[in-house]
Amino acid sequence: MDQRVSLITLGVRDLARARAFYEALGWRTNAAPDDDTVFFQAGGMIVALWGRDQLAEDTGVEDGGGWGGITPAYNARSPEEVDAVLAEAAGAGGTILRPGAETFWGGYSGAFADTEGHAWEVAHNPHWTIAEDGSVSLR
Amino acid sequence: MDQRVSLITLGVRDLARARAFYEALGWRTNAAPDDDTVFFQAGGMIVALWGRDQLAEDTGVEDGGGWGGITPAYNARSPEEVDAVLAEAAGAGGTILRPGAETFWGGYSGAFADTEGHAWEVAHNPHWTIAEDGSVSLR
Repeated sequence: MDQRVSLITLGVRDLARARAFYEALGWRTNAAPDDDTVFFQAGGMIVALWGRDQLAEDTGVEDGGGWGGITPAYNARSPEEVDAVLAEAAGAGGTILRPGAETFWGGYSGAFADTEGHAWEVAHNPHWTIAEDGSVSLR
Repeated sequence: MDQRVSLITLGVRDLARARAFYEALGWRTNAAPDDDTVFFQAGGMIVALWGRDQLAEDTGVEDGGGWGGITPAYNARSPEEVDAVLAEAAGAGGTILRPGAETFWGGYSGAFADTEGHAWEVAHNPHWTIAEDGSVSLR
């Protein structure tokens, strides 16, 4: 198994609402209006929105209903950009879970939930490098 | 918010066991043996292992305890590679949630859980392109 992730699927109850949320953040998809799966090309990987019940069945798991111990994160290029992304998420119908603040590891971060309750951390990590194309490396 | 994901953090109860699982799959980290966070460079993004309680607090959520509606996936280059990755995961101490099988969308996939119960889908999708460097695109 190569050291990579190809896709993250977010299980949703209201696909149209979730799609509208990510589109309001500026994300673009080629999905047709009535497609039951929405794929976003996200750098060298893909983010998908799909029915949560279908995803649970496809994954072979019981749905715990809440947060399940996985948090995706978006790294910004500055603390100011963290605040801007959080504001954008709130404006798009998301919920601020934790406002931007300095962290114990020397960075700055906050968190929001999308319309389906999926939490994203938004962080500025001065120890990591963000390339022009948005890819992130540990050095 | 650019259309990308920087990091996925998997909350774990037993960091050493989880780290050993991913290392048994061939993943490599520069984390020291007693670091409380383990980062894996995964293509243009990062996969982290961190205490599940700490991650829940940092994310600003209550822990539902089970699966939370997010499934990461690993895309392989052939159906045979899907089966090989599932076998590798089982051999490393993971659990097969769904054995490899043909899918309704014309691909082939299965799913495993790591030692912490985090489910991964493993799929071959003939409609997508996997580049030499492992990045995946919708066309």
